[in-house]
Amino acid sequence: MEKLLRKCQIRNQLVRECMAECLGVYILILFGCGSVAQVTTSQEKNGHYLSINLGFALGVTFGIFASRGVSGAHLNPAVTLSLCVLGRHPWIKLPFYVFFQVVGAFLAAATVALQYYDAIQAFTGGELTATGPTATAGIFSTYPADYLSLWGGIVDQVIGTAALLLCVLALGDQKNGSLPDGLQPVLVGAAVLVLGISMGSNCGYALNPARDFGPRLFTYIAGWGVDVFRAGGGWWWVPIVAPCIGALLGTLIYQLMVEVHHPPTFQEAKKEVELEGVEPEGEKPT
Amino acid sequence: MEKLLRKCQIRNQLVRECMAECLGVYILILFGCGSVAQVTTSQEKNGHYLSINLGFALGVTFGIFASRGVSGAHLNPAVTLSLCVLGRHPWIKLPFYVFFQVVGAFLAAATVALQYYDAIQAFTGGELTATGPTATAGIFSTYPADYLSLWGGIVDQVIGTAALLLCVLALGDQKNGSLPDGLQPVLVGAAVLVLGISMGSNCGYALNPARDFGPRLFTYIAGWGVDVFRAGGGWWWVPIVAPCIGALLGTLIYQLMVEVHHPPTFQEAKKEVELEGVEPEGEKPT
Amino acid sequence: MEKLLRKCQIRNQLVRECMAECLGVYILILFGCGSVAQVTTSQEKNGHYLSINLGFALGVTFGIFASRGVSGAHLNPAVTLSLCVLGRHPWIKLPFYVFFQVVGAFLAAATVALQYYDAIQAFTGGELTATGPTATAGIFSTYPADYLSLWGGIVDQVIGTAALLLCVLALGDQKNGSLPDGLQPVLVGAAVLVLGISMGSNCGYALNPARDFGPRLFTYIAGWGVDVFRAGGGWWWVPIVAPCIGALLGTLIYQLMVEVHHPPTFQEAKKEVELEGVEPEGEKPT
Amino acid sequence: MEKLLRKCQIRNQLVRECMAECLGVYILILFGCGSVAQVTTSQEKNGHYLSINLGFALGVTFGIFASRGVSGAHLNPAVTLSLCVLGRHPWIKLPFYVFFQVVGAFLAAATVALQYYDAIQAFTGGELTATGPTATAGIFSTYPADYLSLWGGIVDQVIGTAALLLCVLALGDQKNGSLPDGLQPVLVGAAVLVLGISMGSNCGYALNPARDFGPRLFTYIAGWGVDVFRAGGGWWWVPIVAPCIGALLGTLIYQLMVEVHHPPTFQEAKKEVELEGVEPEGEKPT
Repeated sequence: MEKLLRKCQIRNQLVRECMAECLGVYILILFGCGSVAQVTTSQEKNGHYLSINLGFALGVTFGIFASRGVSGAHLNPAVTLSLCVLGRHPWIKLPFYVFFQVVGAFLAAATVALQYYDAIQAFTGGELTATGPTATAGIFSTYPADYLSLWGGIVDQVIGTAALLLCVLALGDQKNGSLPDGLQPVLVGAAVLVLGISMGSNCGYALNPARDFGPRLFTYIAGWGVDVFRAGGGWWWVPIVAPCIGALLGTLIYQLMVEVHHPPTFQEAKKEVELEGVEPEGEKPT
Repeated sequence: MEKLLRKCQIRNQLVRECMAECLGVYILILFGCGSVAQVTTSQEKNGHYLSINLGFALGVTFGIFASRGVSGAHLNPAVTLSLCVLGRHPWIKLPFYVFFQVVGAFLAAATVALQYYDAIQAFTGGELTATGPTATAGIFSTYPADYLSLWGGIVDQVIGTAALLLCVLALGDQKNGSLPDGLQPVLVGAAVLVLGISMGSNCGYALNPARDFGPRLFTYIAGWGVDVFRAGGGWWWVPIVAPCIGALLGTLIYQLMVEVHHPPTFQEAKKEVELEGVEPEGEKPT
Repeated sequence: MEKLLRKCQIRNQLVRECMAECLGVYILILFGCGSVAQVTTSQEKNGHYLSINLGFALGVTFGIFASRGVSGAHLNPAVTLSLCVLGRHPWIKLPFYVFFQVVGAFLAAATVALQYYDAIQAFTGGELTATGPTATAGIFSTYPADYLSLWGGIVDQVIGTAALLLCVLALGDQKNGSLPDGLQPVLVGAAVLVLGISMGSNCGYALNPARDFGPRLFTYIAGWGVDVFRAGGGWWWVPIVAPCIGALLGTLIYQLMVEVHHPPTFQEAKKEVELEGVEPEGEKPT
Repeated sequence: MEKLLRKCQIRNQLVRECMAECLGVYILILFGCGSVAQVTTSQEKNGHYLSINLGFALGVTFGIFASRGVSGAHLNPAVTLSLCVLGRHPWIKLPFYVFFQVVGAFLAAATVALQYYDAIQAFTGGELTATGPTATAGIFSTYPADYLSLWGGIVDQVIGTAALLLCVLALGDQKNGSLPDGLQPVLVGAAVLVLGISMGSNCGYALNPARDFGPRLFTYIAGWGVDVFRAGGGWWWVPIVAPCIGALLGTLIYQLMVEVHHPPTFQEAKKEVELEGVEPEGEKPT
């Protein structure tokens, strides 16, 4: 059996990375949207808002475990973008990563819809809607609260994604946190948990263009119709654009307040002198 | 005292492994079904659905801690089967492992029934049933939700067990996750937690033939009667068959999307050349 | 300041150990009973049963962190007794450990009563009772549920403490679990969490004579009166006697099913041969 | 990009430490007060008291991860004070640390108010008050329960902060806990979690002058008015003064019951003899 599998081995690095990102986001959305489906269709009998927070948090954790050794486990176009801007990830890979992240999210949404098919039918009476008391589009992608203005939503997503990047960069900064490497996935999950606990109320803390757009595309195709793009005053583009801005902002804040000021280690200092100011090569992001 | 105990030492490896599997599953079910008993008999006063999720999650964690050094802590016939198919566990041990896993689950169900004897009597008025408002058979094994079709149940168990294996294999894949070895039991527990949070609603996430069949057998014998096999339209065989399919599917997905594509380490590459394509020996599974 | 403190240094090992046990149990009860006080006096507004489970679990974790380097962090007379029987702790220290464990629990109960003085007054209208709708004695020690028979209570405490010891011994068994040493306090806390989740319903999972008797003594003295011994049909002695039996039972099960069968390491085997069958000295328990 | 950022590098150690403390407290309050905002404005639909406890706990964890490598992550004037008294932190830095801790808390409160602007407007109808059914000042700083006397509040804050320091010092005491260094932020967060679970009911477990005063100042300026200082019978100074007393008390208890009695390591003993009783230099606090 192992021999047979060995024959399927792909040696192209980019293909491997894209498959890992796809699987990572798949796991993230499978658990995340699955937990929303459970809470929604059981009408809070088998879970509450906190279990949704835990679902996405542990989804992120296991998504990272499934992909970090191969692709670095970005699982989020906004993270990939930030790392490209920082010079830690090649720009050329950006579109491939983003595409497969969206594909993973789309496939996971389809899986959740398949697994909860009977439950959704029973809960909605067969009518798939994006609004109203038996709305189920919210299982898959985010919609703003009634009170939220468009600007309020943008601000929310910018602040949320900035906070996410602050945490992720702090965890990965070996001169600061010194977290054992194998526990990073758990703590990135914890960051997503606290974001859901403290910033989930306004518009469901997408914080991730792929997490929101992939499932939304699925609902559009699978019977929820064009309402998934119209609802919330054409909300759909906010969780795509605002997280990218937020990720860059969070990166900038962490760099300016902590990371650039770390004194160089002896090795780094020596290297810099030798290269006469040439930048050290981008480190492998985590 | 230690001298006395030393006299009971058994040196046969298979017997030791079977006892460890039995104890591991015993702990898993003792905490898991115990938490369902607490929520059911206290009518949600001393716990909610989330505490049942935590009960099974930590049950798995401590079950693994109690057995992994001896038997590798499968605790699940579907996991043992997958490892046999992958060539990482000898087929000859499969029936022994499975039998003692079921025995452990049976004994744990008996212990829970003993511990909650007064509580179950008070809650049911002494009538042990598998359906109705004071049904208590659900403390021990899983039953499908009213809305669930048979195919829906099979799909649910296949997807759930596949997701479980995806997580477990990612955690154990040293070229990917690099989790400190001693923390694997905690994170396998976390995987079970998130499965309960995101896929528990339809039919109670058995995901494990022994976990479901052992306690069901106990309820059949202990007074709940033949209804435990009849309820849910003869549901009992689904959590036995579907998890095995799901485990194989999850194994296949992880292998094909991540594991087989890892470039060999220098040591592995050298060995392979030496042996001229002969497979390396099965590693000890975890 | 540090100089001044240095003058108070005590070098007697037993005194240091007793102080550490006292502080460890103090922390355990301060957080544990504090969380019950919060849930009771806020009438479940600021917490639920799960938060009580977390309170005791994290109380155990921090109690262990505060004492393990000095006394081995037993924090429970039933644990000390088991270790004495196993030959891993000197019998002569048993009464000292137990006494200071009870003292720590007593002092912590007094602290909780002080901190929640206003809240208890407001909740009870000033009447301190062990039964009835505004009973507050349950903040400090355990009382059985109405439905529970005496034998049911004994069985519950025996099973619960046996399960606790199974977990604790598995975590400490380096040939089985291989948990990083510094994380043991966290996982013993997790064991207490799952015990509260799965076995708390019948009679409040004391599982520890000091945890129950120290605070009960405090309530007897502090105004709740002789009812704290009379309530539940003279329940008070059960959480003292049954946990001791349970701890021994759990120890026996783990020894017979796992620990004695571990093959000796090369070093152990050599030592045994040299000593011609003489037992190796008791290891330091953890 | 990295080149550009490198140009902003600040090499002054105190400035770097102040920025790190500011960012650390910012993260703590952003998540902590954010979780209160979520629970308050969603009227417990998107969270309960436990999620507030988790919000502050994980806020502390990530605040520490963001600053510990630079400033030692005090994040609390009472902690800085205790370390100064113990001789582990220079007194001269105390006012700088405290000022930037308060600034971080102020800025975070402003960010939460911005993010929840629409939600607060919808919940209150636009009226920002410190008392009454739609009071929102409690999102930012703490107010006592109705039943609490002034002395009760002082006692509560003293006990709570003492318990916090007991935990923090035990975690940092390498001769006792032996916790892996990288996990300390997680366990300090767990200490804050259990404090919220067991001591949050009376007056909201500020336990930190900066955490309470910074946001209170913000609410005073931002439209809640002078009531934020008047409410609770002029409560505002208690969470400033009492935590300082409590921190010193907790430090003293831990020193006297555990830390000073540790036998010196061989290296320490040797050093002490060489220096003829001169104190060893203050270690870097954690």
